[in-house]
Amino acid sequence: MTHSHDEESRALAEFRAFRERMNAEILREGNLVVNRFFALDGRTYEAGALDAKTKELLGLVASMVLRCDDCITYHLVRCREEGVTRPEVFETFSVALIVGGSIVIPHLRRAVERWGEIDGAGSRDQGAGPPEGRAAP
Amino acid sequence: MTHSHDEESRALAEFRAFRERMNAEILREGNLVVNRFFALDGRTYEAGALDAKTKELLGLVASMVLRCDDCITYHLVRCREEGVTRPEVFETFSVALIVGGSIVIPHLRRAVERWGEIDGAGSRDQGAGPPEGRAAP
Amino acid sequence: MTHSHDEESRALAEFRAFRERMNAEILREGNLVVNRFFALDGRTYEAGALDAKTKELLGLVASMVLRCDDCITYHLVRCREEGVTRPEVFETFSVALIVGGSIVIPHLRRAVERWGEIDGAGSRDQGAGPPEGRAAP
Amino acid sequence: MTHSHDEESRALAEFRAFRERMNAEILREGNLVVNRFFALDGRTYEAGALDAKTKELLGLVASMVLRCDDCITYHLVRCREEGVTRPEVFETFSVALIVGGSIVIPHLRRAVERWGEIDGAGSRDQGAGPPEGRAAP
Amino acid sequence: MTHSHDEESRALAEFRAFRERMNAEILREGNLVVNRFFALDGRTYEAGALDAKTKELLGLVASMVLRCDDCITYHLVRCREEGVTRPEVFETFSVALIVGGSIVIPHLRRAVERWGEIDGAGSRDQGAGPPEGRAAP
Amino acid sequence: MTHSHDEESRALAEFRAFRERMNAEILREGNLVVNRFFALDGRTYEAGALDAKTKELLGLVASMVLRCDDCITYHLVRCREEGVTRPEVFETFSVALIVGGSIVIPHLRRAVERWGEIDGAGSRDQGAGPPEGRAAP
Repeated sequence: MTHSHDEESRALAEFRAFRERMNAEILREGNLVVNRFFALDGRTYEAGALDAKTKELLGLVASMVLRCDDCITYHLVRCREEGVTRPEVFETFSVALIVGGSIVIPHLRRAVERWGEIDGAGSRDQGAGPPEGRAAP
Repeated sequence: MTHSHDEESRALAEFRAFRERMNAEILREGNLVVNRFFALDGRTYEAGALDAKTKELLGLVASMVLRCDDCITYHLVRCREEGVTRPEVFETFSVALIVGGSIVIPHLRRAVERWGEIDGAGSRDQGAGPPEGRAAP
Repeated sequence: MTHSHDEESRALAEFRAFRERMNAEILREGNLVVNRFFALDGRTYEAGALDAKTKELLGLVASMVLRCDDCITYHLVRCREEGVTRPEVFETFSVALIVGGSIVIPHLRRAVERWGEIDGAGSRDQGAGPPEGRAAP
Repeated sequence: MTHSHDEESRALAEFRAFRERMNAEILREGNLVVNRFFALDGRTYEAGALDAKTKELLGLVASMVLRCDDCITYHLVRCREEGVTRPEVFETFSVALIVGGSIVIPHLRRAVERWGEIDGAGSRDQGAGPPEGRAAP
Repeated sequence: MTHSHDEESRALAEFRAFRERMNAEILREGNLVVNRFFALDGRTYEAGALDAKTKELLGLVASMVLRCDDCITYHLVRCREEGVTRPEVFETFSVALIVGGSIVIPHLRRAVERWGEIDGAGSRDQGAGPPEGRAAP
Repeated sequence: MTHSHDEESRALAEFRAFRERMNAEILREGNLVVNRFFALDGRTYEAGALDAKTKELLGLVASMVLRCDDCITYHLVRCREEGVTRPEVFETFSVALIVGGSIVIPHLRRAVERWGEIDGAGSRDQGAGPPEGRAAP
């Protein structure tokens, strides 16, 4: 619940750093099932019969109805990279809100704040870092 | 868990009939909040910044990770009407499976069976009946 | 998804019979934690600072947002015994629907059908059988 | 997990401020479905067949079993405004705990801390701010 | 909610047949992510730092708190094959019940009925069929 | 999302202190159902047909698929006390990840960080404090 723009940027930067650091530690452990799952997670959002943008929207709406802030942040960053617009993000939010109910609202608030930060900071340049599992051996 | 083709068709027909009958009874009650929610639910999937097909895929993946068979059936019928292909359905399933885990598998089995029935029966002609809430005053 | 009135009554009667039979078998096993939990569950809905009717409404709305049909049926039977009216049931449904979203709708349909059966059958005379755990030693 | 009384008050004040700021930004976006849902959410808890106090208790227990701290805080503030007493709050907590299990306990701890703050601060004077969606056009 | 012993056996046999038929159809589709997930799911329960019996108990308790009857049935069959005893099953149930709350009870009832059937039928001879994904190419 | 080792230790110490303080306040309230549930929760993990270590692993995997960070931390501390090794913890994580899906990953990251802290700090000496409800009268 950061409030100034600097605090917001710090929250997103911390999320990226923590995520990268822990992903590396997890993969280093060498648990076969965990490592293969991370690799598989990375492949899930690659373009196929559906394009990458649609798949990121699917990941976003699933993360919202399951109410996972970190997952929402990750998919918002990836949506931005795939060129998703603010009205498209809000329509995805509207599906999550109707399917998942008012319990989604606190996550919606944080998602809207996060989107403002991602969109404003020109995330296209910074990137989201490697998707889940891409760093897997 | 119907097995022959006839049993499958019967299951889908029963779903439609029960859904229509109960929606009518619910709306007839005249509870303002319930009726407005049903109407709003119907509008959620209308084309806007995102097209209707994408929105139905969003509804489908959200229904799968939240593990609601009736909701999955409803969105599969609507996906078929919007021209979604079998590979597109399976890619949507793959996102739900990775995000939601193996707990989704029993719903995936029933969804694949249902899709076979919907696709085989040429649901385009029959239609899914009015979406949630379209029958609302 | 029973359809005729007879089928509906049969479904409710089967629910009661299965519930009683399995509760008895579970308690007979003598697992201390399970048996104490069943006994505690029974006490939870007894009148205290809040009256029994309000507590059954709390149990009903919790069961709906967690989407458990058997739990919903149980609390609907108890609500009927506590004199809850149809408009009160629908207002409770409306809270569950707004908090839990459209994923609640299939359970709402079955709950409305069940309520019709419970209310029509004069459940006051038959009773719901002992609440969870009351049969516990 | 604030610890001193001042920190607690700060947490509640931050919650209010963040909630109001983001609600305003969300509604300003003008997404029809989102805005109507917010308005509908506000109406859900108005007195009808059930009084406002009972409806807030329903919202509280639903928020607890679905484990949403912000939603719990919101309904605790509204419960306080409707004159709910500490024993009534604890009986509502007990229903949530039995229905939802020990996974609810961490939210129960934060809820009890929050209630102490709300009750101590005389929230009746400050109010919770407009309920979800009341600020909607 | 089968009632006679024959009906119970039929339910378990139907579960096995449906599961095998649909797994085959799903894997035949050739979606890379889905097929790899099925294969990975099969490997998850192989003995490693923890033995196979402990891992099946972990799968069972996870399936119970997430309230998936088919997943519970699958892990009960596998538990029986690994020599889990009735008191061990009930202690696992007790953890699920305390962590997940009374919302788990209807699944507990069906699980106890299923265990009686599996245990009585000498599932050790019949086996559960290949675990999730073992049939994967 | 603490980052330095000191911050990590502080987070764990704060968790312990907050947990103990609020448990005491909750039990002091004297709500019969809540207090008995806390006591019952404590007994659930005592050795019986299954040993204490296995039961803590069951509690851990249930907490992960239900995605409760505080519950995960509690069971990790108890697992360490029961002599669970890092590879055993990771195999338990792998079951949670496969059953619960990628939505579990953010909790996995925090769990791995927490385990490093618990394991490094020699939690065996400090102990987790009394388990849930042990402080109950």
